[in-house]
Order: sequence, then C-alpha cells, then structure tokens
Amino acid sequence: MALIVQKYGGTSVGSIDRIRNVANRIKTEREKGHKVVAVISAMGGETDKLIGMASQLASEPVEREMDVLLSSGEQQSIALLTIALNEIGVEAVSATGRQAGIITSGSHTRGRIEDIKPAVIDRYLAEDKTIVVAGFQGITEEGLIHTLGRGGSDLSAIAVASAVKADICQILTDVDGVYTADPRVVEKARKLPEISYDELLELASVGTKVMQSRSVEFAKKYGVKFEVRSSLNENPGTIVTEEHEAMESVVIRGVSIERSQARVTITGIPDTPGMSGKILGALAEAEVNIDMIVSNIAHDGCARHSFTMHTNDLGRSQVALKPVLAELDGDAAIETEAGIGKLSCVGIGMRSHSGVAAKMFEALGEANINIGMISTSEIKISVTVEEEQIEEAARVVHSAFGLDA
Amino acid sequence: MALIVQKYGGTSVGSIDRIRNVANRIKTEREKGHKVVAVISAMGGETDKLIGMASQLASEPVEREMDVLLSSGEQQSIALLTIALNEIGVEAVSATGRQAGIITSGSHTRGRIEDIKPAVIDRYLAEDKTIVVAGFQGITEEGLIHTLGRGGSDLSAIAVASAVKADICQILTDVDGVYTADPRVVEKARKLPEISYDELLELASVGTKVMQSRSVEFAKKYGVKFEVRSSLNENPGTIVTEEHEAMESVVIRGVSIERSQARVTITGIPDTPGMSGKILGALAEAEVNIDMIVSNIAHDGCARHSFTMHTNDLGRSQVALKPVLAELDGDAAIETEAGIGKLSCVGIGMRSHSGVAAKMFEALGEANINIGMISTSEIKISVTVEEEQIEEAARVVHSAFGLDA
Repeated sequence: MALIVQKYGGTSVGSIDRIRNVANRIKTEREKGHKVVAVISAMGGETDKLIGMASQLASEPVEREMDVLLSSGEQQSIALLTIALNEIGVEAVSATGRQAGIITSGSHTRGRIEDIKPAVIDRYLAEDKTIVVAGFQGITEEGLIHTLGRGGSDLSAIAVASAVKADICQILTDVDGVYTADPRVVEKARKLPEISYDELLELASVGTKVMQSRSVEFAKKYGVKFEVRSSLNENPGTIVTEEHEAMESVVIRGVSIERSQARVTITGIPDTPGMSGKILGALAEAEVNIDMIVSNIAHDGCARHSFTMHTNDLGRSQVALKPVLAELDGDAAIETEAGIGKLSCVGIGMRSHSGVAAKMFEALGEANINIGMISTSEIKISVTVEEEQIEEAARVVHSAFGLDA
Repeated sequence: MALIVQKYGGTSVGSIDRIRNVANRIKTEREKGHKVVAVISAMGGETDKLIGMASQLASEPVEREMDVLLSSGEQQSIALLTIALNEIGVEAVSATGRQAGIITSGSHTRGRIEDIKPAVIDRYLAEDKTIVVAGFQGITEEGLIHTLGRGGSDLSAIAVASAVKADICQILTDVDGVYTADPRVVEKARKLPEISYDELLELASVGTKVMQSRSVEFAKKYGVKFEVRSSLNENPGTIVTEEHEAMESVVIRGVSIERSQARVTITGIPDTPGMSGKILGALAEAEVNIDMIVSNIAHDGCARHSFTMHTNDLGRSQVALKPVLAELDGDAAIETEAGIGKLSCVGIGMRSHSGVAAKMFEALGEANINIGMISTSEIKISVTVEEEQIEEAARVVHSAFGLDA
C-alpha cells in the first residue's frame, strides 16, 4: 500500500465527463489499496474566463483581488471532483489551499510556497479518506490568498507530496512521459523510464516544456521523486529522481531543439570593462530574453559579442542596441541573422565521459550540417545550425549517441 | 460621517455593467464622507449554474462540497467588485466569509451565524478602506466552509452591521421599500417610512417577501436598524427598527394577501385527546405546510378541525388523511375547498386599539365579501375570502384603516 499524490491539470478536469473520468482513475488506485491525495487545477478555460471578466472592469486589475478571483476556479473543481468521488463510493473531502496548509510568501499572482502544514491532510489520511486539494493557491501567514503563477499546480503537488511524505507524486498530463527527443521530429525517439532532476531542468530550458523549471527545482531541493505520465492511458511514464550511479553510464539522456532563433553579433567593441554590462543592460531593459552568449576578442583587439534570442525579439533588440552603439567609437557594428535553430544534447553522463562534443560535431559534419555558435554547460552542449537543417541535426545526433529505438 | 453596511443581491451584481454601477454607488457614499462595508451575493445565475454542474455528477451531492462549490460564487463577485472599485479610485479590499470572521454552526448548506469576529474588517476600516464582504458564507470553528441557505446574504449583512456597530444597514434590492400593501393590487398603497421588526415579520409570514424571516429575527435580536431600499434609484426606502411609542398611533401598518389557498375541514372527530396530534402529524409527515388552524366542537359533541394550505398541497393532504380517517369511527368526514384567498392586517397599534377586527369585518361586509375562517395573533388578523374577491377585499380594508395615499 502506497501513499500517492496525483496532479491533474485543467484539461484533465475540463468538463463534467472528464471530472468523472478522473474520479474513476482515483477509484482504481483506491481499489489497489493505495491512499490518494489529488491536487487539481481549475477546469480548463475557467481561469481565462475570469481573467476576461476582470479585464472588462480594469486594464490592470489589482493583483490582490486577481488572486481572490482566480483561486475560486480551483475551489469549484475540487468540490466537483469530490462530489463525483463520493457518488462512486470513494469517501473523499476537498481542501482549499488554505485548508491544505499551503503557506506562501512573495507577491500576489506569483506567490512562492514557503511551507506546508499538512495537519488537516494528515488527519483525513488517518481516517482513510481521499483528499482533493486545490492546486495553484495558498495563503500568506496573514491569511491573504495567493496564487502561484504559471505551473503553480505542479508546484502544489510536489510540495504536498513532500509534506505528506508520499511514496510517489504523479504528474498526470497530456504527454506520455519524457522522451529522448520530440517524437514528432525524431521518429525513433524513446520514452525514458527515468531521468534526473538536472537533466530535466536542462531539457526544460531548451524547449521540452513538460513542466515549469521551478517545480522541478522544488522537487530537487526537497528530494521528491515524481512521475510524468498520461492522464489518458495507464502506461507507465517517466520517473524524475535524484541522479544515481547507473544513470552515468548513459552519455546523453536526450536531445532537444528550438526553432525560430536569431543571432545578434556586435563587433568592434573597445575591450574595456563595463561594455558587456552596458549592452546586456540595454537588452534587458527592452525585455529581450537572451539565450546563448558567446564573447571573445577578435584579431583587431576589439571584443565581439554574439547572442541568440527568439526571432520575435530581434527587432526590439536592434532598437535597444542602436543608442549603445552610437556611444561607442565608429568601429562598432551590428550583424544579425534570423532563421537559425538550436540543438542541445543533455546528459549527466557527460561529466564522466570525454569526447562527447567531438562525437556530436562529427555526426553533424558527416551530415553536412554547419555549426554556428557553440555553448556548453556541465551536462549540456548546445549548437546553432541553419533552421532548415534542425530536424535532420536532431536525428543524426540522436542516432550517433545510440538513442534510437 | 456614518459607517454604512450595504447589501447588494445577485441581480444587482449580475453583470459586468451592474458591478460597475454598484461600484459607482459606493463611490458616491464615500464622496459624502461615509465609510462603507458592502456585503454582496454571487452574480445572478452563477449559483444555479454551479448547482446544475453538481447535479450532473450526483443526484444528491455531498453537502460539505456543495458549500465549497457555492461559496466560490461570492468569492468571484467580491473580487470583481473590488477590482471595479479600485479602478474608479476607491481604495477597497475584499474579504471572504472566513476573512470577515463570520463564524457559523449548524449543518452544511444551511449554516447559522454564531458569531462575527470583525478584527480584519475593523483594521481595514481604521485604514479608511472600503471592504467588500462575501455574503451567504462563513466558516465553522473547525475551519470548514458553510453557506447560509436562502436569504443568507441579508443575514450576513445584518450580522456584519451588528459586529462593526454600523450606523445603518441598507438592504439594496429590486423593491423600493415596504408598502402598506402590494401596489400591483392596491393602487393607493404607500411606501412606509418605517416599520417595526414584528410587523415586518408578520407581513413576511403572509407573503410580503421583502426578506427572509430569519434575517429580520436576527436584526431584532441584536437591535440592528436596517433600511430596505432600491438599488436602481436614490429614493429613501423603509427603515426597519425597534418599535417606539409613536408607532402605536397607527392601528394597521399594512395589509397583505395570499392567493391559491385551500381549506381542509375534518368533521365528526371524536372529542378525545390525541386526535389533533394524529391529524397534524400525518400532514407533517406528508410535508404539507399548514397555515391557519381553526378548531372547535360542533353541536353533535364531535370536534371539527379546519386548516388552510397552498392549493398545491391539497391532493397530498387528502392522501395523507385517508388512513387517519379510516381509523376513526364512521362519522368522520373530510371536506375540501380550493380557490380561496387570505387577507391579513398587521400592526402593533392593534395592541392598544380595540375594535380593529370589527372594523375590518364591517368593511368587508359592506363590500359584500363573505368571511370564511378567522385567525388572530397579537398584531395580526387574518381572514379567508373567495379568491376572486381577494383584491377587492385588500382595497376596502386598506381604505377602511385610512392607509390610502
């Protein structure tokens, strides 16, 4: 008998029929002898409806009240799911974020989970009840309602799992698990049985949007093992856990791609302190999200900075950089290139295996794919290539590292 | 400068435009220098929508969860109104039933207000903020959500007014106030400037559904003066207050009618103890709401009971009485009559004025209106007449007591 925390997102509880399905899934776990705490989101579409109403009343609705407004969405979904559970003979009770003891700090609409006081959940578990907890919400020490921002329900589930010492936290979603690559791009991609927190974090940062990074970071910090699996079938998903020795035998866990990237290169920058800060500061102020940064000194003794960003940010970054360049002496110039893609290989095995980069570059070379920028971290290598070659690049690298099914 | 509690019902906050109107009304009070605590219902229709969803999931949804579900409706309306207030420059905060310190006891879906701990409201008032409180809801000492049942928001408003020692509690509704009679029936009806709790209670019990009786009783118990007025215009309404000497000079405060009444008379009942209990018990079990009860001994020494009820209950009461009559000896018989109406005169002046009944019966007699049953209380006289004469009966009695405008 295990204690399972299950998280269901807004799509999974998006209609009366789907709520009934979730109730039946939970009943199945109960019949296997497990205890269940379900953490759920508002019904799909509800949050947008509420935001729409608020925006009719104010262009910038006060955030304190947005939290009161939006948290009502989960209050409805937990009540409805609990009604459905009781109707099919599963004794269940609901708990709002407050009742579940989810204590937050930080700002309205983007609260941080500070602590969980699971006294109420523990009491109901001791009575052998199923508990349905409102995700995405908590309260401050002063009793004000907070919502947790994007991906907040995942965070709630992982925090609750940690507080009640669950055996496993299942994140039930519309994907089957984490794959070695996007199966729509790499046909031979395989579902991973397990992956480490750090690997998932690196994959998440390059576009594999299984979960928000902060939920994974929270799980890592508190050592919460969780499983990403489908709410539509019974297949096992991917376990996300602390790394262990056996994981290191795999060099590369997965490859990931990002499209619609652009590169900005600034040449002829005097090699004096403070120049990089000035350039990056101007881009930050213009709200340009910079991804890769490559910088070196050219043969003329001047510095040369290259950045990648989403193509949508290219225009804004050129506007932001214009006054900065005007301040520099006449040699500074800006070059831009759109239509590039980014390919990343991620794996903790990289730490103990040498020659990973060489193998990656070789594979790309053999396929006549030219590499632009390169950047590396401890467990990730990223390169830019022409966008039209990005899919082929993913396939050859996937194959080269023996990831093909 | 006064402290005003204003209650707005579901219709008053039933759309984005109406919420905006309520915000403007509150702003007007603030500009006059008053402090305002608004107690509001869920947006009109929202509660029915939620009940509809729950009933798709269960024929009898668990009541604990119905409270969680329905209380989300006011959580949305308070947030939206507070957003609207801040948008037009009125510094405001919302408070759920819990945050407002509304402590309840009793059962789910029909909680009773036990206490109000106004610490949070008082603090915001001290900061000169406007507070928007969720009506219809509270929490138990154990932290469970309760709703208060029908008319619950009026009750919340009166309880909050009592707790914060408001100068006045305004119940804003779709009627202008309390009238001497229903203006659709008696053209010359006048709006009353004031009325006592007891008079309103008696009028409420005979169909003048301005407010649920328990809200009036609560106000009476805690001495909360309130005003029933329209949310659609600025006219003064009717003040409901403790009775005072000047009120007694008016013999009759108002007249009220009920239609679709029916009478059941049982004759030939042996005059032995326990018979009435048997008959009334059978009707209660069949959920027949009995209104007037008249009982006496006929010339044959047998008892004779007459009851009035709503016509809809007539069939059910005949079915319920059949086995009771069968148990009695062969003389017992049942007579029924539908198509009757009830006319009531209410006024605390009755206590100190004699001849009120005589005057009423005289007026009806002059108009050739025959009286059926009669029942009286300390401040009310009710009679039944033919339903087709009920409107004329109201007009002649209204006139006889000098109530015409």
